[in-house]
Amino acid sequence: MTDTSAVKDALRRQHIETPSWAYGNSGTRFKVFAQRGVPRTPREKIDDAAQVHRFTGVAPSVALHIPWDTVDDYAALAAYAKERGVEVGAINTNVFQDDDYMLGSVTNPDPAIRRKALDHLLECVDIMDATGSRDLKLWFSDGTNYPGQDDIRARQDRMAEALAAVYERLGDHQRFLLEYKLFEPAFYMTDLPDWGASYAHCLKLGPKAQVVVDTGHHAPGTNIEFIVAFLLREGKLGGFDFNSRFYADDDLMVGAADPFQLFRIMYEVVRGGGYDPAAGVAFMLDQCHNIEPKIQGQIRSVMNVQEATAKALLVDAGALRAAQDSGDVLGANAVFMDAFNTDVRPLLAELREETGLHRDPIAAYVASGYYEKVVEERKDGQAAGWGA
Amino acid sequence: MTDTSAVKDALRRQHIETPSWAYGNSGTRFKVFAQRGVPRTPREKIDDAAQVHRFTGVAPSVALHIPWDTVDDYAALAAYAKERGVEVGAINTNVFQDDDYMLGSVTNPDPAIRRKALDHLLECVDIMDATGSRDLKLWFSDGTNYPGQDDIRARQDRMAEALAAVYERLGDHQRFLLEYKLFEPAFYMTDLPDWGASYAHCLKLGPKAQVVVDTGHHAPGTNIEFIVAFLLREGKLGGFDFNSRFYADDDLMVGAADPFQLFRIMYEVVRGGGYDPAAGVAFMLDQCHNIEPKIQGQIRSVMNVQEATAKALLVDAGALRAAQDSGDVLGANAVFMDAFNTDVRPLLAELREETGLHRDPIAAYVASGYYEKVVEERKDGQAAGWGA
Amino acid sequence: MTDTSAVKDALRRQHIETPSWAYGNSGTRFKVFAQRGVPRTPREKIDDAAQVHRFTGVAPSVALHIPWDTVDDYAALAAYAKERGVEVGAINTNVFQDDDYMLGSVTNPDPAIRRKALDHLLECVDIMDATGSRDLKLWFSDGTNYPGQDDIRARQDRMAEALAAVYERLGDHQRFLLEYKLFEPAFYMTDLPDWGASYAHCLKLGPKAQVVVDTGHHAPGTNIEFIVAFLLREGKLGGFDFNSRFYADDDLMVGAADPFQLFRIMYEVVRGGGYDPAAGVAFMLDQCHNIEPKIQGQIRSVMNVQEATAKALLVDAGALRAAQDSGDVLGANAVFMDAFNTDVRPLLAELREETGLHRDPIAAYVASGYYEKVVEERKDGQAAGWGA
Amino acid sequence: MTDTSAVKDALRRQHIETPSWAYGNSGTRFKVFAQRGVPRTPREKIDDAAQVHRFTGVAPSVALHIPWDTVDDYAALAAYAKERGVEVGAINTNVFQDDDYMLGSVTNPDPAIRRKALDHLLECVDIMDATGSRDLKLWFSDGTNYPGQDDIRARQDRMAEALAAVYERLGDHQRFLLEYKLFEPAFYMTDLPDWGASYAHCLKLGPKAQVVVDTGHHAPGTNIEFIVAFLLREGKLGGFDFNSRFYADDDLMVGAADPFQLFRIMYEVVRGGGYDPAAGVAFMLDQCHNIEPKIQGQIRSVMNVQEATAKALLVDAGALRAAQDSGDVLGANAVFMDAFNTDVRPLLAELREETGLHRDPIAAYVASGYYEKVVEERKDGQAAGWGA
Repeated sequence: MTDTSAVKDALRRQHIETPSWAYGNSGTRFKVFAQRGVPRTPREKIDDAAQVHRFTGVAPSVALHIPWDTVDDYAALAAYAKERGVEVGAINTNVFQDDDYMLGSVTNPDPAIRRKALDHLLECVDIMDATGSRDLKLWFSDGTNYPGQDDIRARQDRMAEALAAVYERLGDHQRFLLEYKLFEPAFYMTDLPDWGASYAHCLKLGPKAQVVVDTGHHAPGTNIEFIVAFLLREGKLGGFDFNSRFYADDDLMVGAADPFQLFRIMYEVVRGGGYDPAAGVAFMLDQCHNIEPKIQGQIRSVMNVQEATAKALLVDAGALRAAQDSGDVLGANAVFMDAFNTDVRPLLAELREETGLHRDPIAAYVASGYYEKVVEERKDGQAAGWGA
Repeated sequence: MTDTSAVKDALRRQHIETPSWAYGNSGTRFKVFAQRGVPRTPREKIDDAAQVHRFTGVAPSVALHIPWDTVDDYAALAAYAKERGVEVGAINTNVFQDDDYMLGSVTNPDPAIRRKALDHLLECVDIMDATGSRDLKLWFSDGTNYPGQDDIRARQDRMAEALAAVYERLGDHQRFLLEYKLFEPAFYMTDLPDWGASYAHCLKLGPKAQVVVDTGHHAPGTNIEFIVAFLLREGKLGGFDFNSRFYADDDLMVGAADPFQLFRIMYEVVRGGGYDPAAGVAFMLDQCHNIEPKIQGQIRSVMNVQEATAKALLVDAGALRAAQDSGDVLGANAVFMDAFNTDVRPLLAELREETGLHRDPIAAYVASGYYEKVVEERKDGQAAGWGA
Repeated sequence: MTDTSAVKDALRRQHIETPSWAYGNSGTRFKVFAQRGVPRTPREKIDDAAQVHRFTGVAPSVALHIPWDTVDDYAALAAYAKERGVEVGAINTNVFQDDDYMLGSVTNPDPAIRRKALDHLLECVDIMDATGSRDLKLWFSDGTNYPGQDDIRARQDRMAEALAAVYERLGDHQRFLLEYKLFEPAFYMTDLPDWGASYAHCLKLGPKAQVVVDTGHHAPGTNIEFIVAFLLREGKLGGFDFNSRFYADDDLMVGAADPFQLFRIMYEVVRGGGYDPAAGVAFMLDQCHNIEPKIQGQIRSVMNVQEATAKALLVDAGALRAAQDSGDVLGANAVFMDAFNTDVRPLLAELREETGLHRDPIAAYVASGYYEKVVEERKDGQAAGWGA
Repeated sequence: MTDTSAVKDALRRQHIETPSWAYGNSGTRFKVFAQRGVPRTPREKIDDAAQVHRFTGVAPSVALHIPWDTVDDYAALAAYAKERGVEVGAINTNVFQDDDYMLGSVTNPDPAIRRKALDHLLECVDIMDATGSRDLKLWFSDGTNYPGQDDIRARQDRMAEALAAVYERLGDHQRFLLEYKLFEPAFYMTDLPDWGASYAHCLKLGPKAQVVVDTGHHAPGTNIEFIVAFLLREGKLGGFDFNSRFYADDDLMVGAADPFQLFRIMYEVVRGGGYDPAAGVAFMLDQCHNIEPKIQGQIRSVMNVQEATAKALLVDAGALRAAQDSGDVLGANAVFMDAFNTDVRPLLAELREETGLHRDPIAAYVASGYYEKVVEERKDGQAAGWGA
């Protein structure tokens, strides 16, 4: 039997970070559909992120993306966030949206472009100093589209060199999270295509280099929870970029495509000690709201992570281990599925009520009138755009 | 033994259509990299397409995309193309780049938006009347991102209704080619996800509705040449959108990712009678030159289709059939591979020389100075953008 | 709001067919692990199937597989089944386990082998006459391993010829269900690789030819519920072979890999009228219990289908349609997910109690002592083997 | 320009190892088709392997598989091989074909079974001592079929423990090659699913633990040549198990499914120094001849590796690097494709002639009458069976 009050305690301290770019317009290569009420500035994005925290109580930080969130005074931006009840979280770098990066950033054959890319990464560490951020998130779109286009190994040498330079620049309480992705926008070879490549680079650099798992960045059929379990065992899981997908890097709301997979992932997090704050695992969302309202979409994603976490915490560990150790295939699976099949929504509603929140975050947000307010306030000016 | 002069005759009458949008800037959702010398108008795109034909001799038509190629006078545009030595080919419709289409075009739950989309399709038939085009290419981005978002079956009813209305409007010598695609931009359910769905709709409508195979629109592992053989047997293969992919709808240069697959496809075309002009199979390219020079990229794609076709024509049909009929697995495969392993570049160079072309189209194009000329001429103004 | 009593009524008349071969030993190419208590004869398989029905109440028929279930007197076997409380269901043909079929059965290049295969299929219709079965299930392992090995189109001609001969032989109340499969055991080209190919053949033959969907036979990323919705709209969905998979045709317990997908499939069944007995959709299981106890595994699969069906029936159709029609993406998805997130196990336990069954079929089966009994009774002799 | 005589020199020292099990009967879970002339003993398998070397000149060793090739006196078997003109190569372990291993071998929850599995592995090192083999190939079918079935992390602990024990036992000139595989026969989680997992274990153990890449063991879309390049850069590529696949682990003849991929892999081998004997990369075949004659199938595979290698060696490294460094996407790709498009069969025929071999190994083998001879000699007795 699992102790419900312990589960509640654990859920109360959950910390899910939302990304500033999820509040802006986003889309596919075919079309970015404009929505109403979309923020126009980093501060307005923070305002929106604060709403997600206001109604869920578990989203107390917001990740920034440079240069989309470039401001003159980052310390002031961080202070603004605190006023709004949230903190600035990870700093996301961007070395993919400049014409110079057509053939790569830190792995570009041209040393001048590599230097430019590295300078951006280092500048992002300066921003971390100003905002007090712990995590630098590194995603590289680097790769090639055609066999022979560039030298795979030489690009690894360049990648290693850039990562070492960034690592060197990190302060005592800072680290970087190295992302990997199978494909897109590179369509033949990506310089960091899988967890193994990120892991190998991070391992050489040391404890301040950690792997981040974006749940949409794998080949079909990949068992993501295995990777989570493996990296936790190695002490190399830095965090998650949560989203969901049916096909490729669809960037849908978390848990929308395969709630059972999300549960299995959260189970391995709990099992491997990754839910303990001391483990330093960052639980971040990274998704694109192409067709759904953005703030509501974030709230739904946060709730879906909560529900999966609640189920993972409800797994009867003792019964599971007993069935596993005795080779009882169906029994072990039944214990596991029992937690998944449980409807945890009442538990979470109760928990919210206990902490002064509305039982239903979506309904409370809708009733708040915030959406109508920002649609009116933000009707002029340039809506913020996006990245994945 | 295969008769080389018959092969050459067949290659001489090859007809590959290039797409106007391949000459404009294109990219991924992350970035559209601007290139130099990119056309600014439909006429300039036609100028570029004419270069591809000039150096390859087998690309005598260019497909248009509405509204990207919207002009006041389509008859004049068609006349302009003829002056440049090419013809206007298929008319491609676009019902995916308007904010109204966020939840679909012809399958949208809103009847007013469905009407708007249908009107566009019908208008494209008017354009066909003006340009003398035979083929209307229908690609729908319609679908849903989330389970439950809309009713799958109701959307089929709407699709059927729209297709019937377009079919009804077609003239005696016109037809439509119905495209299918597994995913993107819809990430949960696409209304025409596979050849079976397109085929079923076309079958009900009649002979003027044909299926078009985009080689990048399938699930991993799909045997595309089977689909080609099957549709040819059913008399339902309307044409191809050629491109290549390693992962999803990568839209790389034709034959760049898997030249053996391209050969197998062309073999089934030849085997099933689809290379005979009377079969009405349209051989079109549809690709995005994200990082490579566009005209050169098109020439390379055209050459790759030529090479695959030459190899397909070189298969020793008698020897193959004999081995197949006797159950000689290795023998039959060996006959097949012998054609693929043959270096057909000398044959094609010879063929070009015989028809007054340079043996090496890429080298001839580079030497022509056309690129430098258009870089200078087109340095001002707005470069044309794209779609897939 | 959904009417719970109507849901219960619908669940009460559910009919899930278990396969005789699931009770025998099965495995992978690497190893068939022997289990204890495995049946040795068709009658013992029926005994086991009767247990599944005894404890679930919704599995009143068992499919046979010829020649694995070959007996001298099929009428007597059918009578035996009735005595045990179940009926003989579909007859499954087998034209893949004879050395003659190495290069195919009905599509083999050798006409004598094609004839032999066809004779087997026709003999299975004789068996249907004797058992009173309605459905003949046709799965062909036919295909090729190497490009060029045989002629794709000629094989389609042979397939069409064989199917027509079987169709001709069917009695008034008989039909065949035509299965498709992407790959395995053919590794280059399968003669019926997807629903489109099965559909096209069935459409030509007439109403007694229907498509059967094996949930494990698709390419990665295929949206199976789309196929279900599409075939129901066309009146061509004959039934299901349920199982689940993470990778290929894994043949795991139904709903074990992706319970949300199973729910979505059952929702489309309900939505499209396929749950109405008049629709004639056969709900069959087809799985391999490689490592789990077989009868318990079947009970679990049956329960998983029940749970998914209950959730599908609980979808608030009115609220869903309203949200869909108004383009409320998140609202429609929320209505859909509300049903999935509901814990229907109490409802099903209640339903069982009302019909005189134990609330927990697994516990009741374990407590019955049946397993210990058959382990003892069947300790000698040759355990039955398998097929997928 | 590439120096043809240097290419020939390199090709002359090529060493491809064939597997003893490829000469026995093999198949899928549906059927193992019996062929004629199949060896009945390890010595007869060596006889067949010697034929492959006799006609190709580049297959001077044969891998053994224990217990399929169990003999009383391994030194005598090794001596027999030498008499036949070949050597005993890698020793392949088998901990998947015993009923005890149903829930795993070295990762089984039962310590007694783990001990049994480890004992087998250690015994295989004894056999290496007797045969003089350098390489122990470790493939584990270990994994689980159902979520929750066993503890992912505990299984990693057990894996690490077993690998350490084997590592400890290795002699000075011995090493082990650790294989990974995405799935099959485990259908939910495989304990070593990807190169990252094998790499991480090998890295901790030291230089005598190396990763082996089976070209059929990856998720769809995986860029295998990236893995090859990455592992070579890390000094961790121990070797290959070559075969080819369209779908899963199809185990077809090498190069049969995607000759361009094989070329790209061999290019990275050459580029990364892996073709240098000092690199210690073992080039092994691992395939299943389900429907094709076995010796001929092996000869074809060996020839396909040769052809891919010849093309890889022909890449104009200087021109390629120049194009790459200048960011000339199409130019670099063209240099690369030029080598692939070259017909290297005449070069290889010439090379064979120069070394006293027939120009056409298949024709020479067929003409030799060996097949007819063994069909007669081996018509009685039990044909050898298989493994993947």
